[in-house]
Amino acid sequence: MTLQLDTDRFVATMEEQAAIGATPDDGLHRLALTDADKEIRDWFVDQLTDLNLTVRIDEFGNIFGRRQGTNPDANPVLIGSHLDSQPNGGIYDGQLGVVTALEFLRTLEDEGIETRRPIEIVNWTNEEGSRFQPAMQGSGVWAGAHALEAEYQKTDRAGTAVREELERIGYLGESPAEPTEPYDSYLELHIEQGPRLERAGANVGIVTGIVGFTWGEVTFTGEADHSGPTPMDHRRDALVAAADFITAVRRLPGTLGEATVGTVGAVDVSPNSINVIPNEVTVTWDVRDGDDAVVEQAAQRARQEAAAAATREGVEYEVSDRMRAPSISFADRTVSAVTAAADEMADCRAIELESGAGHDATHLTSVCDTGMVFAVSEDGKSHSPAEYTSWDDCCQAATVFANAALQLATE
Amino acid sequence: MTLQLDTDRFVATMEEQAAIGATPDDGLHRLALTDADKEIRDWFVDQLTDLNLTVRIDEFGNIFGRRQGTNPDANPVLIGSHLDSQPNGGIYDGQLGVVTALEFLRTLEDEGIETRRPIEIVNWTNEEGSRFQPAMQGSGVWAGAHALEAEYQKTDRAGTAVREELERIGYLGESPAEPTEPYDSYLELHIEQGPRLERAGANVGIVTGIVGFTWGEVTFTGEADHSGPTPMDHRRDALVAAADFITAVRRLPGTLGEATVGTVGAVDVSPNSINVIPNEVTVTWDVRDGDDAVVEQAAQRARQEAAAAATREGVEYEVSDRMRAPSISFADRTVSAVTAAADEMADCRAIELESGAGHDATHLTSVCDTGMVFAVSEDGKSHSPAEYTSWDDCCQAATVFANAALQLATE
Repeated sequence: MTLQLDTDRFVATMEEQAAIGATPDDGLHRLALTDADKEIRDWFVDQLTDLNLTVRIDEFGNIFGRRQGTNPDANPVLIGSHLDSQPNGGIYDGQLGVVTALEFLRTLEDEGIETRRPIEIVNWTNEEGSRFQPAMQGSGVWAGAHALEAEYQKTDRAGTAVREELERIGYLGESPAEPTEPYDSYLELHIEQGPRLERAGANVGIVTGIVGFTWGEVTFTGEADHSGPTPMDHRRDALVAAADFITAVRRLPGTLGEATVGTVGAVDVSPNSINVIPNEVTVTWDVRDGDDAVVEQAAQRARQEAAAAATREGVEYEVSDRMRAPSISFADRTVSAVTAAADEMADCRAIELESGAGHDATHLTSVCDTGMVFAVSEDGKSHSPAEYTSWDDCCQAATVFANAALQLATE
Repeated sequence: MTLQLDTDRFVATMEEQAAIGATPDDGLHRLALTDADKEIRDWFVDQLTDLNLTVRIDEFGNIFGRRQGTNPDANPVLIGSHLDSQPNGGIYDGQLGVVTALEFLRTLEDEGIETRRPIEIVNWTNEEGSRFQPAMQGSGVWAGAHALEAEYQKTDRAGTAVREELERIGYLGESPAEPTEPYDSYLELHIEQGPRLERAGANVGIVTGIVGFTWGEVTFTGEADHSGPTPMDHRRDALVAAADFITAVRRLPGTLGEATVGTVGAVDVSPNSINVIPNEVTVTWDVRDGDDAVVEQAAQRARQEAAAAATREGVEYEVSDRMRAPSISFADRTVSAVTAAADEMADCRAIELESGAGHDATHLTSVCDTGMVFAVSEDGKSHSPAEYTSWDDCCQAATVFANAALQLATE
């Protein structure tokens, strides 16, 4: 039997959530722990209450709703994603994952389906990481990747701390922010945020894992001379070295793995004045690949390129790693459940792929078997009001998710 | 007869002025119209009063001291520079020029020398342009390049206006900020702020003019995608295009004039986040040459390079000019006076050169015959506490200046 979702209610629920924190251009501005986040949380708790779920708020504001299984001793299946957004983000992102999990539970109620395992739905606190760093904060604390006290003290640009905001909006819960029992599995639906599905003519992604990455930064230090009287051969221009490095990172992927990506996202220039040769420039790097050996090579190459750029311009340089994440392979069991669900749907165009971005699922892999379903992103756009997935494609991905989750909860 | 300065008094005066706004590392922090600037102005007025000069403060705070000539109808010679400094600048810069002019007048008094022409010494308001833009503001207003009222309203980062500060420190004078009579000539001594003299084994520069320049900026606009899931061939990375442009500007001088210089000093990246592909990056350019045709070519080449960089990365671009200054040739008369003075000194190692930087003298060329003397800058350093010229070299340049000024005031 294939579970069918109520498409109209699904779309109506998506629109309902998208109205809280809506921007004039149909985007979503719902930063973690703001008033808009409080409003969507209240709405979410109402939905869980309407479904007679047992609601639990943990010490980091993660919201859980539990539906009992027929076997009280069976380990629960956890499903969900996040309801916070980027500044001027889109309405799909993680929100689609929470609404999908909700609609799945509503459908179980509608159809009177009982499952062997308990099922818990979750909304993770601060997945986006734009107001408070790091991203995936709530799931990271819950899974034990970050210490609770340290994350409480993280502040936004105004100096307001996470704990303060959790308390202010009424979501500093009492339940421990950790798994208090063994979990069977975690399943999350998210938009792809890249163009691979669309390029392959697919609308649903069977996610096999998450690529690994290296993050770091290079600071080039030269000499701040006057742009007029300083001859070209007398210069030690930190910005020219940085430009060299940026170009090298753009070229890097083509010399490593087939799907390697490399980005310089941030630059800091000092003194940053039109007529002064820059003496200090810091640039970041972000290189990702599914193969950890390639990521390791990339981190080494970043160092070599920094050295070469510095030598060419006669400047000093200092390299520091900011983060290294190994690639993640999801459990065969969870990937198979998604594949089986997709196979059952005649008109679903699903392919396997790795996620290029991190998700709450990243942290969950240390807790239980984890899997993800992707919905196609038009033109790969995300984190902007232009983010788009047709309701048809949303519903197909959601149906795959529901049937995979049902299988996990049943077996 | 060659005029000799009192070296000990000259050095003592330099040290006296350097104590006002001194930094712990022997630099100078004396921003225009701050309390430190008020203090050095008060000191300067005291020196003029001690010399029995007629002191005049104009509406823009420029301070003049007049020594009468034997022919009351002769047009005066104007000499001087500026006493304000960059943030954490050096103690020489324009200060050396004011002290030199002062020592020259003191020496005339000591020796009982009368000149046919009146001589006026001047300290120009806000030459540096670091607190209030533009640079060379006081001389620009006085020479008619800028409107008084508009410059009064320029504000610093705290929103404080020039006029307000002039009033606060007591230097909003009543004399019109304009030449109220025809001037014969203007002579200014300044450090070179570049390494050409040192490289040529010279210690004094006979400045023949000031190079022209083109200032502009390019904004590249691409697409802000997630650095993880976006394949390299799906990107429109504004920062990669900007890096390409920076490299092109570094390469530009070698394909234009022999002494052309090109700099990208400022970069603005949006959203400037490690894991987002930059969608908007603005970079500046500053290209200078003594030949206006080369500067014109450089402005065109900047446009071409922006277009080529944008095409390569598939981004949009917009170019805008910010300023264009033609090159300036100083009058033969003033240059000859400096040359003659240098020739008379057996141990002075003087060469001709063009100034790569703008100075107050830039504006004075529209008022009268103008000339400059440069003192060698060790390693070309300026605008930092590392700025250095030995007292010997300072005195040699000052002596050349004094004798050139005397000739102009006599003929």
